[in-house]
Amino acid sequence: MERVAIVGVTGYTGIELARILLNHPGIELAIFTSDTYKDRPLSEVVPSFAGVEERPCAPMDPDLVATEAGLAFLCLPHGTSMRVAPQLLERGVRVVDLSGDYRFRDATDYSEWYKVEHENPHLLEEAVYGLPELFGDRVKHARLVANPGCYPTSVILALAPLFLMGVEVEGTIVVDSKSGVSGAGRKPSQRLHYPECNESFSPYGTGVHRHQPEMEEGIERLCKRRPTLLFSPHLVPMNRGILSSMYVNLSSSVDEGEIRGFYQEFYKDSPFVEVLNRGEYPSTRNVRGSNRCHIGIFTLNGGRLLVLFSAIDNLVKGASGQAVQNMNLMLGLPETMGLEATALFV
Amino acid sequence: MERVAIVGVTGYTGIELARILLNHPGIELAIFTSDTYKDRPLSEVVPSFAGVEERPCAPMDPDLVATEAGLAFLCLPHGTSMRVAPQLLERGVRVVDLSGDYRFRDATDYSEWYKVEHENPHLLEEAVYGLPELFGDRVKHARLVANPGCYPTSVILALAPLFLMGVEVEGTIVVDSKSGVSGAGRKPSQRLHYPECNESFSPYGTGVHRHQPEMEEGIERLCKRRPTLLFSPHLVPMNRGILSSMYVNLSSSVDEGEIRGFYQEFYKDSPFVEVLNRGEYPSTRNVRGSNRCHIGIFTLNGGRLLVLFSAIDNLVKGASGQAVQNMNLMLGLPETMGLEATALFV
Amino acid sequence: MERVAIVGVTGYTGIELARILLNHPGIELAIFTSDTYKDRPLSEVVPSFAGVEERPCAPMDPDLVATEAGLAFLCLPHGTSMRVAPQLLERGVRVVDLSGDYRFRDATDYSEWYKVEHENPHLLEEAVYGLPELFGDRVKHARLVANPGCYPTSVILALAPLFLMGVEVEGTIVVDSKSGVSGAGRKPSQRLHYPECNESFSPYGTGVHRHQPEMEEGIERLCKRRPTLLFSPHLVPMNRGILSSMYVNLSSSVDEGEIRGFYQEFYKDSPFVEVLNRGEYPSTRNVRGSNRCHIGIFTLNGGRLLVLFSAIDNLVKGASGQAVQNMNLMLGLPETMGLEATALFV
Amino acid sequence: MERVAIVGVTGYTGIELARILLNHPGIELAIFTSDTYKDRPLSEVVPSFAGVEERPCAPMDPDLVATEAGLAFLCLPHGTSMRVAPQLLERGVRVVDLSGDYRFRDATDYSEWYKVEHENPHLLEEAVYGLPELFGDRVKHARLVANPGCYPTSVILALAPLFLMGVEVEGTIVVDSKSGVSGAGRKPSQRLHYPECNESFSPYGTGVHRHQPEMEEGIERLCKRRPTLLFSPHLVPMNRGILSSMYVNLSSSVDEGEIRGFYQEFYKDSPFVEVLNRGEYPSTRNVRGSNRCHIGIFTLNGGRLLVLFSAIDNLVKGASGQAVQNMNLMLGLPETMGLEATALFV
Repeated sequence: MERVAIVGVTGYTGIELARILLNHPGIELAIFTSDTYKDRPLSEVVPSFAGVEERPCAPMDPDLVATEAGLAFLCLPHGTSMRVAPQLLERGVRVVDLSGDYRFRDATDYSEWYKVEHENPHLLEEAVYGLPELFGDRVKHARLVANPGCYPTSVILALAPLFLMGVEVEGTIVVDSKSGVSGAGRKPSQRLHYPECNESFSPYGTGVHRHQPEMEEGIERLCKRRPTLLFSPHLVPMNRGILSSMYVNLSSSVDEGEIRGFYQEFYKDSPFVEVLNRGEYPSTRNVRGSNRCHIGIFTLNGGRLLVLFSAIDNLVKGASGQAVQNMNLMLGLPETMGLEATALFV
Repeated sequence: MERVAIVGVTGYTGIELARILLNHPGIELAIFTSDTYKDRPLSEVVPSFAGVEERPCAPMDPDLVATEAGLAFLCLPHGTSMRVAPQLLERGVRVVDLSGDYRFRDATDYSEWYKVEHENPHLLEEAVYGLPELFGDRVKHARLVANPGCYPTSVILALAPLFLMGVEVEGTIVVDSKSGVSGAGRKPSQRLHYPECNESFSPYGTGVHRHQPEMEEGIERLCKRRPTLLFSPHLVPMNRGILSSMYVNLSSSVDEGEIRGFYQEFYKDSPFVEVLNRGEYPSTRNVRGSNRCHIGIFTLNGGRLLVLFSAIDNLVKGASGQAVQNMNLMLGLPETMGLEATALFV
Repeated sequence: MERVAIVGVTGYTGIELARILLNHPGIELAIFTSDTYKDRPLSEVVPSFAGVEERPCAPMDPDLVATEAGLAFLCLPHGTSMRVAPQLLERGVRVVDLSGDYRFRDATDYSEWYKVEHENPHLLEEAVYGLPELFGDRVKHARLVANPGCYPTSVILALAPLFLMGVEVEGTIVVDSKSGVSGAGRKPSQRLHYPECNESFSPYGTGVHRHQPEMEEGIERLCKRRPTLLFSPHLVPMNRGILSSMYVNLSSSVDEGEIRGFYQEFYKDSPFVEVLNRGEYPSTRNVRGSNRCHIGIFTLNGGRLLVLFSAIDNLVKGASGQAVQNMNLMLGLPETMGLEATALFV
Repeated sequence: MERVAIVGVTGYTGIELARILLNHPGIELAIFTSDTYKDRPLSEVVPSFAGVEERPCAPMDPDLVATEAGLAFLCLPHGTSMRVAPQLLERGVRVVDLSGDYRFRDATDYSEWYKVEHENPHLLEEAVYGLPELFGDRVKHARLVANPGCYPTSVILALAPLFLMGVEVEGTIVVDSKSGVSGAGRKPSQRLHYPECNESFSPYGTGVHRHQPEMEEGIERLCKRRPTLLFSPHLVPMNRGILSSMYVNLSSSVDEGEIRGFYQEFYKDSPFVEVLNRGEYPSTRNVRGSNRCHIGIFTLNGGRLLVLFSAIDNLVKGASGQAVQNMNLMLGLPETMGLEATALFV
């Protein structure tokens, strides 16, 4: 049984990975690291693991990780990930990186959007963009997988089939996304302080969020055409979930049933994507705690305006669940192994 | 001192009106009615009034209301309002109607969107659309004021100046709005049951909501041009607040500072509208419990794409606060009287 | 592989059972019924099952259930359950009842607290109170298991060891419990309407809740002594979770470490109960979505006052998870099968 | 018109004070200070003041404050307050201190519970404990008012009449309190980070919270008897509100109606305290945003066990509203001036 590592286990994606991997029947979680909490039992740092996982967090040491595991998940801040990934790769450890460090193909784009020079641009070319529904074949053989961002996952899954259909899009696609607060990470701040976040709704980062070029590039990778998006994220007072609303102007009229038919066919072998029936809207709660993505399709203005909605759990399909899905492919395990949990309806 | 009435006091807009009017120094809340709870003290039905308002709810009787009050707020379901309004008007009572019954000018539009024939279409012409920042002069002399919907208030205030500026809009304006749950009313339902609403975010009524034509007509009333909107509402797990995100394509480039300057000038005598500074995003919490509207302005794509955000409290500026603002104008009182409360930051 | 049934699948405990059982490797969910939604696919009624469980809800028919399944979970209102249980038992189907109908030993107690005569009092004697940590041996061979209430589960697990220790309790034990809203069921009502529940905290049913005698009797079953409790429940604005705070006056001083040691020993073979370390408080989020119970122990006033806190997920350990735990015992499966999920930390 | 100052305006109690005082017709908010945000407009630091209060925060300078104002509210951390208060007092400025620095009469108690030596113990004797319903006469003439803690306000108002009645209490009174998160202050921390606070309920500080001796001393000041309390606070996932549940064993039976009658008589001239009718439970939402306290009374066990519930808004009656009530008394203004706002029902 393959042994795997979580590097940086005490952030939300690390905790969520541990939660999933501890119940995964096909691998063994051999080691998890935290420099902040090293040598302290995971159950002490994150009490939901009390009685479940009492081993201490290891310090991050590439030799140790390479001794213990053949595959590692990096749950580190961007900028840090690109320092650790090469150390593991050169020791023969395959890597699924959950940061933004390997999501662009071009080091210039990276430095423009992340405001830091890339330290190993040659790896950008090798890295596979880990959206299994679209790039699963390449994931299987990858040494280094760039796990997609939460927003891009919700958006690319909803838009990609449209571009593959060859429908003619007019102008900018408005992508109005809404995310639960766990997407902003575990570090306390004034903006994420409970009383200032609770019972409030607000936009941020309109048109200047790093996930906008990631979405555009993700679609371009697949369709060889770069769409023009306006990405407008908002913060929702809830823990988990992303709902993206996408507004697409078309140069000629389309039939809603035809679009839905294409989507259903496109995703018929994708166990985690569900194209909803006519008139059905997705809700984040219907995917909460699951690795699923629900997509709703609506046409308006006589078929000239297409509205797409997609819902995922940002920590599962938007991060750690998807990372495990990538791992399954990399290890030749069934794609859904360890990820079968149905959503918590309430 | 003018005596006023609330007809239908036990829904959320009625309760909110009572809350505001009981502290209003310029009028007397003479009577409030509820057919469901008649003869029961308001404090018993709505315990936040314990020790504040112990008088019983009166039954709805037009003669009684006309004896007690010179102005009445109707907080009734649509369809019911249009039966009550004429009874009060013919008894000399001025009316502020919070339902949708008098918001359209055309009875055909009304029956198309509300699925019921209008019973007194001649009043549609007389009714003044009560958005005081735009139609305040007509409100002053109105017998019958149609208090705007919550979503339309947030959208028209943000879009109207743009249309008055004479900027050339291209195609459909996407209006992606998000509302707290109180906007859906007080009647229990599966969808609004706490555990199914909490911790979830979802769209509904895309392109088919009654507030879409109301917004379009509201702007047309002012600017003599009917815009094409796509209104896409969403439900947010919080009690109060609407945040509308509007995406406007322009046929030529605009300067953000110029737009902001025009808006600030346009609203300089409107005490409740605040145009935010460059880079500032509105949040619903910054207007919670207040009669204010915050507007944020952003340009992108070299000035060819304008993004507007507006935030209001749906129960105050989006309903009962605005109704009081209309009353103030109708009675010749200062526009802000009884509405000075600053937002509850937490 | 044993085939099982859920009778009444569309309430919260039924939905939660389906969620757990569909991933349970040791049984097959053969049939689920709903009279309200019969013949409609479960995925349509509860969209979190989209792509997961598309079979229609069956009507409740005892012959049909008996043909399909050897064990049935009853997720029915009290009063209805006691009509269905005998029909299934006489057809050879073992029953785990999640209502209150078989939790008392005495029909008089039942009619006093549930305000209805018991229709088959002879079954009260046979029914096993299904708290596996305390009565697991009897559960194994039971035909009819009365699955405990959510509050009693949280309280009995925390108090039982104390009574078994033989510590002398003085006077009434105050049990101040707090529950998330899903505990109140799925039926919409004014009190559970989102805006009236959200952002509010309140007590209800002090000293008159049916779970008070259930707790007292549960402890008495085990310890042959009936404690005197004052049960005081409260509603918390969150979906899931119960936190019970218990205040116990003792006639002589105890040592906190000794108490903790006894508890840890008592529960050392109970995989779902975790006795926390000195100074650690339980939180409902640390057990959210899991079948676990966390217990915190504190002594004050020189060891004369013992404060116990326990946390569970009311829908899992407090209802459906515990029901599956009982099923596992009844079917000779490992106690934890299908229930290994770690809590969702956020 | 008296001019007043807020020292430390950017924490939650400072913000709430500004919100109330800006609409107070009897005083002028002459100056507000913040060392962290000095010279920045309040509206920029706290955007709910946009268009409302654009003046900059002043630095804290005792001479400046004394020039501008005759009365100052101190919204400072404990330990800092006791440095500032004497500077203002000696310049002739009356002080309402919202910290814990002047709530004890005895410097030894202070240093025991606050882990710091008191710097001006002589002022402890002079300071008046500012619970106006109980000590209003002394507040009127005070130079220095110690504004009570939020929990003690909710508890003392509910327990004081009982002790004045001369009822014989047996043993320890259990005080199980639940507070919204704003009570924990504005400083970000892991524990108060939105995703770790939301959808969770937990106890903390059982028997070791500073408010326990404050409650005991508050009652002792009034009744000359020191009660024995066990104070057990809990954190509720909501912004505002405290609900305290108090369990009192009595040595002889009491009549609920008699107790209620005494309470109603006792508070008949207290405009902000409402004793609820038989069977009515308080809810925090019924006092949200108001300066009111609701008290519910229940007897059990044949009148030998008394259960009291009280609800306040922790930021209003539990802090800033009560501070203004004290100011009104100190300045000879009507007690309710500026505090008439009815609670926000939703």
